[in-house]
Amino acid sequence: MFLAADGESPQRVCSYQDVLNYLNLTKANELFSMTRPVKDYKRSTEVSLELLLYAILDVKEIDQTFVPYVWILMKWQNDYISWDPHDFCGITNVSLPTEVLWKPDLTIEEMIEKDKAPPSPQLTIDYNGTVFVQNDQVLVSTCRMHVYKFPFDTQRCTLSFKSVVHTVTEIRLVHHWSSSETTEWSRELMRTQYEWLFLNMKVTNKSVTTFGAEQDMIVYTISMKRRPLLYVVNFLLPVFFLLCLDLASFLISDRGGEKLSFKVTLLLAVTVMQLILNEILPSSSNRIPLIALYCIGIFGLMLLSLLETIVVMYLMEKDSAPQDDETDGDRSLNASCGEKRGKEGFSCCEGGDKKWHPCVCICDVAADEATPAELLKVGIRYIAF
Amino acid sequence: MFLAADGESPQRVCSYQDVLNYLNLTKANELFSMTRPVKDYKRSTEVSLELLLYAILDVKEIDQTFVPYVWILMKWQNDYISWDPHDFCGITNVSLPTEVLWKPDLTIEEMIEKDKAPPSPQLTIDYNGTVFVQNDQVLVSTCRMHVYKFPFDTQRCTLSFKSVVHTVTEIRLVHHWSSSETTEWSRELMRTQYEWLFLNMKVTNKSVTTFGAEQDMIVYTISMKRRPLLYVVNFLLPVFFLLCLDLASFLISDRGGEKLSFKVTLLLAVTVMQLILNEILPSSSNRIPLIALYCIGIFGLMLLSLLETIVVMYLMEKDSAPQDDETDGDRSLNASCGEKRGKEGFSCCEGGDKKWHPCVCICDVAADEATPAELLKVGIRYIAF
Amino acid sequence: MFLAADGESPQRVCSYQDVLNYLNLTKANELFSMTRPVKDYKRSTEVSLELLLYAILDVKEIDQTFVPYVWILMKWQNDYISWDPHDFCGITNVSLPTEVLWKPDLTIEEMIEKDKAPPSPQLTIDYNGTVFVQNDQVLVSTCRMHVYKFPFDTQRCTLSFKSVVHTVTEIRLVHHWSSSETTEWSRELMRTQYEWLFLNMKVTNKSVTTFGAEQDMIVYTISMKRRPLLYVVNFLLPVFFLLCLDLASFLISDRGGEKLSFKVTLLLAVTVMQLILNEILPSSSNRIPLIALYCIGIFGLMLLSLLETIVVMYLMEKDSAPQDDETDGDRSLNASCGEKRGKEGFSCCEGGDKKWHPCVCICDVAADEATPAELLKVGIRYIAF
Amino acid sequence: MFLAADGESPQRVCSYQDVLNYLNLTKANELFSMTRPVKDYKRSTEVSLELLLYAILDVKEIDQTFVPYVWILMKWQNDYISWDPHDFCGITNVSLPTEVLWKPDLTIEEMIEKDKAPPSPQLTIDYNGTVFVQNDQVLVSTCRMHVYKFPFDTQRCTLSFKSVVHTVTEIRLVHHWSSSETTEWSRELMRTQYEWLFLNMKVTNKSVTTFGAEQDMIVYTISMKRRPLLYVVNFLLPVFFLLCLDLASFLISDRGGEKLSFKVTLLLAVTVMQLILNEILPSSSNRIPLIALYCIGIFGLMLLSLLETIVVMYLMEKDSAPQDDETDGDRSLNASCGEKRGKEGFSCCEGGDKKWHPCVCICDVAADEATPAELLKVGIRYIAF
Amino acid sequence: MFLAADGESPQRVCSYQDVLNYLNLTKANELFSMTRPVKDYKRSTEVSLELLLYAILDVKEIDQTFVPYVWILMKWQNDYISWDPHDFCGITNVSLPTEVLWKPDLTIEEMIEKDKAPPSPQLTIDYNGTVFVQNDQVLVSTCRMHVYKFPFDTQRCTLSFKSVVHTVTEIRLVHHWSSSETTEWSRELMRTQYEWLFLNMKVTNKSVTTFGAEQDMIVYTISMKRRPLLYVVNFLLPVFFLLCLDLASFLISDRGGEKLSFKVTLLLAVTVMQLILNEILPSSSNRIPLIALYCIGIFGLMLLSLLETIVVMYLMEKDSAPQDDETDGDRSLNASCGEKRGKEGFSCCEGGDKKWHPCVCICDVAADEATPAELLKVGIRYIAF
Repeated sequence: MFLAADGESPQRVCSYQDVLNYLNLTKANELFSMTRPVKDYKRSTEVSLELLLYAILDVKEIDQTFVPYVWILMKWQNDYISWDPHDFCGITNVSLPTEVLWKPDLTIEEMIEKDKAPPSPQLTIDYNGTVFVQNDQVLVSTCRMHVYKFPFDTQRCTLSFKSVVHTVTEIRLVHHWSSSETTEWSRELMRTQYEWLFLNMKVTNKSVTTFGAEQDMIVYTISMKRRPLLYVVNFLLPVFFLLCLDLASFLISDRGGEKLSFKVTLLLAVTVMQLILNEILPSSSNRIPLIALYCIGIFGLMLLSLLETIVVMYLMEKDSAPQDDETDGDRSLNASCGEKRGKEGFSCCEGGDKKWHPCVCICDVAADEATPAELLKVGIRYIAF
Repeated sequence: MFLAADGESPQRVCSYQDVLNYLNLTKANELFSMTRPVKDYKRSTEVSLELLLYAILDVKEIDQTFVPYVWILMKWQNDYISWDPHDFCGITNVSLPTEVLWKPDLTIEEMIEKDKAPPSPQLTIDYNGTVFVQNDQVLVSTCRMHVYKFPFDTQRCTLSFKSVVHTVTEIRLVHHWSSSETTEWSRELMRTQYEWLFLNMKVTNKSVTTFGAEQDMIVYTISMKRRPLLYVVNFLLPVFFLLCLDLASFLISDRGGEKLSFKVTLLLAVTVMQLILNEILPSSSNRIPLIALYCIGIFGLMLLSLLETIVVMYLMEKDSAPQDDETDGDRSLNASCGEKRGKEGFSCCEGGDKKWHPCVCICDVAADEATPAELLKVGIRYIAF
Repeated sequence: MFLAADGESPQRVCSYQDVLNYLNLTKANELFSMTRPVKDYKRSTEVSLELLLYAILDVKEIDQTFVPYVWILMKWQNDYISWDPHDFCGITNVSLPTEVLWKPDLTIEEMIEKDKAPPSPQLTIDYNGTVFVQNDQVLVSTCRMHVYKFPFDTQRCTLSFKSVVHTVTEIRLVHHWSSSETTEWSRELMRTQYEWLFLNMKVTNKSVTTFGAEQDMIVYTISMKRRPLLYVVNFLLPVFFLLCLDLASFLISDRGGEKLSFKVTLLLAVTVMQLILNEILPSSSNRIPLIALYCIGIFGLMLLSLLETIVVMYLMEKDSAPQDDETDGDRSLNASCGEKRGKEGFSCCEGGDKKWHPCVCICDVAADEATPAELLKVGIRYIAF
Repeated sequence: MFLAADGESPQRVCSYQDVLNYLNLTKANELFSMTRPVKDYKRSTEVSLELLLYAILDVKEIDQTFVPYVWILMKWQNDYISWDPHDFCGITNVSLPTEVLWKPDLTIEEMIEKDKAPPSPQLTIDYNGTVFVQNDQVLVSTCRMHVYKFPFDTQRCTLSFKSVVHTVTEIRLVHHWSSSETTEWSRELMRTQYEWLFLNMKVTNKSVTTFGAEQDMIVYTISMKRRPLLYVVNFLLPVFFLLCLDLASFLISDRGGEKLSFKVTLLLAVTVMQLILNEILPSSSNRIPLIALYCIGIFGLMLLSLLETIVVMYLMEKDSAPQDDETDGDRSLNASCGEKRGKEGFSCCEGGDKKWHPCVCICDVAADEATPAELLKVGIRYIAF
Repeated sequence: MFLAADGESPQRVCSYQDVLNYLNLTKANELFSMTRPVKDYKRSTEVSLELLLYAILDVKEIDQTFVPYVWILMKWQNDYISWDPHDFCGITNVSLPTEVLWKPDLTIEEMIEKDKAPPSPQLTIDYNGTVFVQNDQVLVSTCRMHVYKFPFDTQRCTLSFKSVVHTVTEIRLVHHWSSSETTEWSRELMRTQYEWLFLNMKVTNKSVTTFGAEQDMIVYTISMKRRPLLYVVNFLLPVFFLLCLDLASFLISDRGGEKLSFKVTLLLAVTVMQLILNEILPSSSNRIPLIALYCIGIFGLMLLSLLETIVVMYLMEKDSAPQDDETDGDRSLNASCGEKRGKEGFSCCEGGDKKWHPCVCICDVAADEATPAELLKVGIRYIAF
């Protein structure tokens, strides 16, 4: 009424409210919000759905969740809406609060948390009844992660849109943008390329049958590649360095404890690293991730090299003990001397002229009979720490 | 009215709104939303409830929570809804916003947080009054975990559906799918098999009496098995490796500190591992989990072997101290000599011709009297670092 | 109207809606939801409140929060509700959406977060006007924790129910179940006995005066006992083991660095353990928790034993340095010899016949004058690594 | 109507609804909820605001947030509410759902999260139009922390209440309780004194001008003191102990690696402690917190003492190397002998009578020329591990 | 009506409700809340938007989120609102609940979570139709972080305001405060300057075209600088200290294991530090952050120095082994002697007169032929632990 007065002036002006009044579109009018807006119930509603990716906000391997920030554009036909723009000074579309109109009950099967982003408060209706809804959504979705090749992995997460209660005869889901268009436009939109590099999006339209009812489904598959650089620098490299050190430790002579303590400290460092790995990786797959194998492998190698060191040291000791097989005169001295030599590795430095003889002999004998390798060990026997 | 005009055309078309108008089903009509929708209050409402498992999103031992992602299908009879499809061009069902109709006040006893997934906005009504509600829910439920056999454990979590205020005379809960069907269909639906392997679901119908009122209850028991592989690789194996090293360390001679420092470093590594365990396991059970026993057991073994090493070293030292029981002439020298030998393990390298004698004697005596085992220790005495 | 037609049939059936129609109970009728439902304002509303404990979901010492999962049953009289069951085929109670009726503004003083569990959607009214509300609630409440005896502590947390704005003349709070009944029934209900063992509940009714207005208050005191087993196994025992090792290390001779490095590694292990403790315990009490004292005490003991070891080693060295007080001929040699002996601990093994004399003397003197304990130390001096 | 019948009985009873009916106070009546409730718009609304502190729930230095649990009491005049209690059997106040009346748009400037506590559902109106609102609120507010003296710090957090859109001519903010009353009453109310000890509250009334509009503001300043005991016991003391050990390590002789490994292990322990500190302290201030200086200072001291040890050891070695400047006969032997002595620290134990001479000489010379300090070092040279 | 009576008194008073009555502005009047409030739809609505920064609450590198606390002021023209203040005793503005009026559907593109701060409940309308909305918002926004120079980085985060559905012909976005004003006033407002130092804000107005529709956009760019002091003190300095120690360790003689164990302990300390770094830095950039290079670089340097030490020690050993090339008489003794010397490093202290000869010769030869550096190594050979 208030507006009608304006509308009848020679220089005619129209407000959006005139359109609503014409359509009798009010919040209270349940015609618009209660049921699927088709005049003939046999006509299905074709919902056109497009999705672009703004950002990959989070990918949590441990929770198997994928958090994309997407831009969703939907449109469908509302049979109860239509006006002639000529009657309204050329108004072709009106924007309205979203809650006044019926919306398809689309759900994303993978979605496990409500949208965290503020919902878009308005939608647009067209003069021929098309309703446009545009929304930014932060989707917390579940996604089966494949961590086998972590951190050089490529993940594929799907977002499957379908109606909850409507069959294909009621709601048909279509998409107009091809996979390549979606990928390209998403790439332009992408803001923060966090840890993950967006590869591409694939959109497929399929039809699923749940308990006898056939339903349309649009599946968006987002492929992305992890940027492994920092993992390499901060995890793989240090562990590899530790392995190098362990290998290098073979150059350390078996003389004395420094080799053992060196190696066991490296082992401790790898242990600490391994626990960190434990926090990153979920215990999800049947196959052990390569990085876990890498870590446990290096751990195992270090273990083996440690064991080898211990065994070698033990054998050398044991080997050098029964060396008192001299045939000289004063055995008692020799026994004591050999004993001392074998166990102590300290030079038995005897004073007297004659007593020197057997000692020298032993050494002599040892040097004669031994192969060079054995010689080394014999030498070790003498110094054995 | 607006539609009625369409409805009376020769080529008759019907809209869903026609049905609602016929039923007088509006948001404001409290007949549909206020009370249990039976015309005769003596008739109980039979609620059929089926549950399928989409995913096991999380199982937190420390919080004793189990987070399944389930798909719930309920249906019941609403006496106020019924129409003849023939009068409405064959419309057999209408989908409506969920809030306009009464819903049974079913609760899941174990549920401790509100559903985090976006609720399904629509339900479906049938021409004969059946109301179908279909919903995806992320249930944060409490579950008594049995961590005794962790990480080789199998957990059984229950979801108990019952009405809050209605007795069995008002609401009867039934399920039509058997345990095996539920298990099979869940298995087909399952998306991410996270750390847990879904075994089966069992559905049972029981009747509980709370304060004199008998109520129907449907209990879904979900059995699942943990995939222990990564725990084995990242926790059990390293700890076992450390034990191996500790055992191997017996081969290290007691000569000098490298054995002690080796073993105490291993102990430190196990300590760090144990603290990680502390984060995983809840302090819930009367029985200590096996893995804790495994860990503390290995810790204890290492402790004992360390103590044994220390004691052996101590005894050897103590043992070798009072060895100055020679009966030779110049005792004073001998005392000093024996002392030196026992404590130092350094060769007492004496110069003069005659002085050599007693030294040799001692060694001789020691070698004569000692058993082989003692001989070893005597030897150790000489080298004791 | 729709129902009235049914109601007048010979085989009379009544629906719940008939009762509501009789009571004129609609969502819009503010008589039921605006004010305290008494016809005479001087009559106080007696609210009966019972509480049972389902589960103790969490007890966070660090945040001083206690999260019980409780079952609350309230009932009170609504004067505007009453009907004769005979007029309605014997309907004695009707269940309604909770929002249509006035509810007492009860608050739990300790509650610091909104109820996280899904609220119960319905309540029940009786033909004589009694309103029953039954609700499962996850209460995040603040609770003063007493961690002095951790992990052998027993906590007492209170839940104080009172009206926010109503005085005792308006709302009176009563409870009908005694403390023992509440305890017993809670025990039956209890599902997960997490880390805490529920001991008992005590319910007391008291009257508080806030700013001149007297108010009724019902206080539920929940006592619970921590299950310390895992803390003992995973924290107290390892720390105790480390202490044992430290004590055992006294058996390690002061010869050389292995004792020092052994002890300092133990200290490092206790340090790591202490930091974990830091995460568990809040810095709340004036009294230091016993476990912190236990930890810092063991740390201190280790520190002292380390200091003692260092000092003993230092004294022995210092002690042995000025030992060149011989009165023999060639002093220069002796000085050098004594020097060498004291500092090196290596046998000064001299060759010549005559030169041997003084060296022997010294050792002899030392051995003669020393007590056994000193003898040991003298011995140590010679070997001091 | 229903009530009016009751109200006209000789023994007259009045219900609260009678008052609402008289006032025409319904949810739909926008007179009460739309605008500031003054009949003359020139009259400002005086809002009286009092705040008491229930508990200090959390103080997060890292997030600079302060979470008090407060009790807020507001009252103001609503010109549209007034009745004569005599007409209503003496009803002087009525409690109502909070949403039916206008409330001042007070905001707390520091508040960064919505109130987490369940809001109070009811308010009270007086017969002369005063509206009382009483609310428990958990305020997550930002607060500039001063961590310079951590953990001996005292924090001052402010809560500034002001209207968002109303100027001082529209809403005037007053408080009736003085700072000392507020402090005293808060102290009585305080439940859990968590880590923080409440000192006092100061309330001040000021007037701020934002973009030309003058507004009243009430600022509550809460002072609180941290209880440092546990930080002292669990952080400061252990670090101090480690420093003591480092100082004590000066008593360890420079002979051999045990001193180095001892000190570097202490350094590792301090490093671990420092990282924990990193988690506690925010990187916020221009001034480095004292505790960080304490920690880095001790770290630095240990570093210096380690460097000193390394340098001393190096100098001693270097010093002792070119010591073969003897002028005796057989130089070749001496060179070898001096070489051996300086580098090895092993006794060069020569046998023959005559050969002994030069060796003795060297030692003699060294002893003669050296100062006592040098003597010590010379001694060390002989033992240098 | 109630008010009208007042309004006609000679001393005329006006209430805000009079204005609303005149405007017919009620919650139910959809004219004000449904569509863009212009009488002629061709007129665009100019929305003036200003933003000031209260506080930088959080900047999470790992999540790439930026959480500012901002103060937003919007105003626009509502054609349906206008009154003559003279008719209403001079009322020039009225404050109303925000939900009764249409608001532009402005969105912040970067925003990924709903506003956490309590929304402002009221807005103000002017007599000439201008609507003022003022709001405090905690924006959780995504922001591409550049961590290359961490912790000496400066971040630039943008907040891009645009309408969701309106094109530039419908809503025009303007700002009246310049970048410098915004910066200056924000600086005055800033409360807590957390870790970040606010540098400046830049506001730019641009026009974007999304799918054929041109839209206005206002971009606020907030520049801020991290305060690196605590990172320097707690991370960079300790790591640098550890490097210093590693460099200093070159002064430690290669004699024996203390050098190895010293260096490997330093490596362990750097490893622990590196893991902490891992928690701070996101794996986002193609370029590795400098701090990671710093850390891995120091790690690598330590590794190399460790390898060098090991290799040097190995070479010295290997080098000293085949030193038995004497041409003297009794070769057998010499071989044994040289062997012993090279491997043991123990003085071969021989007694007899004649036997001494060859030994002396060897040493002599070695001393003659060797360069000083080689001499050192030869010396080392003799002491090699």
